[in-house]
Amino acid sequence: MIFVGERINTGFRDIKQAVLDRDRKPLQEWARRQTEAGADFLDINLGAVSTKAEDMCWMIETVQAVVETPISIDTNKAAILAEAIRLCDKPALINSTTGAQDKAEQFFPIAVEYNASIIGLAMDESGSPENADMRVEKAGMLLAKAMDYGIPMERLYLDPIVMPMKFRQQQAVEVLDAVRQFQMFSDPPPHVICGLSNVSSGTIHRKLIDRTFLVMAIANGMDAVICDVMDRDLINAACTAELIMNKAIYADSYTRT
Amino acid sequence: MIFVGERINTGFRDIKQAVLDRDRKPLQEWARRQTEAGADFLDINLGAVSTKAEDMCWMIETVQAVVETPISIDTNKAAILAEAIRLCDKPALINSTTGAQDKAEQFFPIAVEYNASIIGLAMDESGSPENADMRVEKAGMLLAKAMDYGIPMERLYLDPIVMPMKFRQQQAVEVLDAVRQFQMFSDPPPHVICGLSNVSSGTIHRKLIDRTFLVMAIANGMDAVICDVMDRDLINAACTAELIMNKAIYADSYTRT
Repeated sequence: MIFVGERINTGFRDIKQAVLDRDRKPLQEWARRQTEAGADFLDINLGAVSTKAEDMCWMIETVQAVVETPISIDTNKAAILAEAIRLCDKPALINSTTGAQDKAEQFFPIAVEYNASIIGLAMDESGSPENADMRVEKAGMLLAKAMDYGIPMERLYLDPIVMPMKFRQQQAVEVLDAVRQFQMFSDPPPHVICGLSNVSSGTIHRKLIDRTFLVMAIANGMDAVICDVMDRDLINAACTAELIMNKAIYADSYTRT
Repeated sequence: MIFVGERINTGFRDIKQAVLDRDRKPLQEWARRQTEAGADFLDINLGAVSTKAEDMCWMIETVQAVVETPISIDTNKAAILAEAIRLCDKPALINSTTGAQDKAEQFFPIAVEYNASIIGLAMDESGSPENADMRVEKAGMLLAKAMDYGIPMERLYLDPIVMPMKFRQQQAVEVLDAVRQFQMFSDPPPHVICGLSNVSSGTIHRKLIDRTFLVMAIANGMDAVICDVMDRDLINAACTAELIMNKAIYADSYTRT
């Protein structure tokens, strides 16, 4: 399982304030904590706090000053991405492009130039997918584009677009179905990832729903997730699910507790 | 989800002693507790304590004296089943037959006569299944036999035979694959059930593995389970998985905590 730590995001109040104050400490603390928890990438998201590439660059440099964990550059702006990726010490994960022509034309060449991995959302100009078939169609077209750019499958992460179960309950089944179908795109298949916490948005049992959904997604072939890597129950559920899928050898010591 | 409470089984020391002493209290306490916890059936297993039908009958009468929960008659002996099922106040669940000709010929007619449901193990004279295909083949032949006897799909529970992950790790994936394929036997499909605790046998994280495996099985179509219904985390994980599968309508109060 590839875990992307979600916490360095200005959607969280402490990170927002730290960026505004240019206070390195909160970012570095979360960088260390998530790395110790086993994060494979640290997602860095500037959000609406600023539109300046230099602020994203400051965040990345701040994090890289204390940990060697690869960076997930979370932006939908090609200009910010182009500046930020130059600073990454290790090949980054670009989060994310869609299949929309103008976006793909900007993002894929950057991924190629920097040997980066890239998340492709199963959507395009026409908006969000409504069912599994649309997810498969959009993801398939995006995958074909990635291949045209010469991006190998092991650097492509398809995202089926998880929606809040409380408000769009049927979408969860559609996402799981799409994840399973993504496995048939190629052999080996591309990675499949999601922003997990969307599924439990607005509910009162967020951790339970996140954990259960992730296990079900792993049963369908998901192998990467953007999540709260500090949530031990979540991580252990994911590790158990991967054991059950026979992707790791059983040992009594398999959990991270 | 159909929950079958596993606890009234002489494999548990207190139940064994109670049967030997003809002490009704432990059985009745577990009958009440499992019923309060939401058990849809109470499994009753005489085990190796006795081969006398009258002992199984005493267990059933003892339980029915305090709860109205339907009984799951857990025996591989047709003679015991034939006596026990006559006492059941509500249509019972027969646990279980295999596809072996002599066994099916004894068990299916009893299910028919008493309007019982019946668990069919995905195996026959040739022994335990080694992979998903064998499970599907054996279950399919068993399902065809059940149809010949006139047993409707809603009273047939296919059991893919769960094995200990610690010792036969690959079998877990094969079971999950089989569960998914069972969905294609008929429309609506038969129920799919398992004896859950087998999967974690010999491990040190039993509850975590049981819970994770059950959620994955539900993602593949399982809709019934023989388990520890007192395990709130397990039940809530199963309820969450069924919500995600869109088999119940989301409400904040959906858990049983």
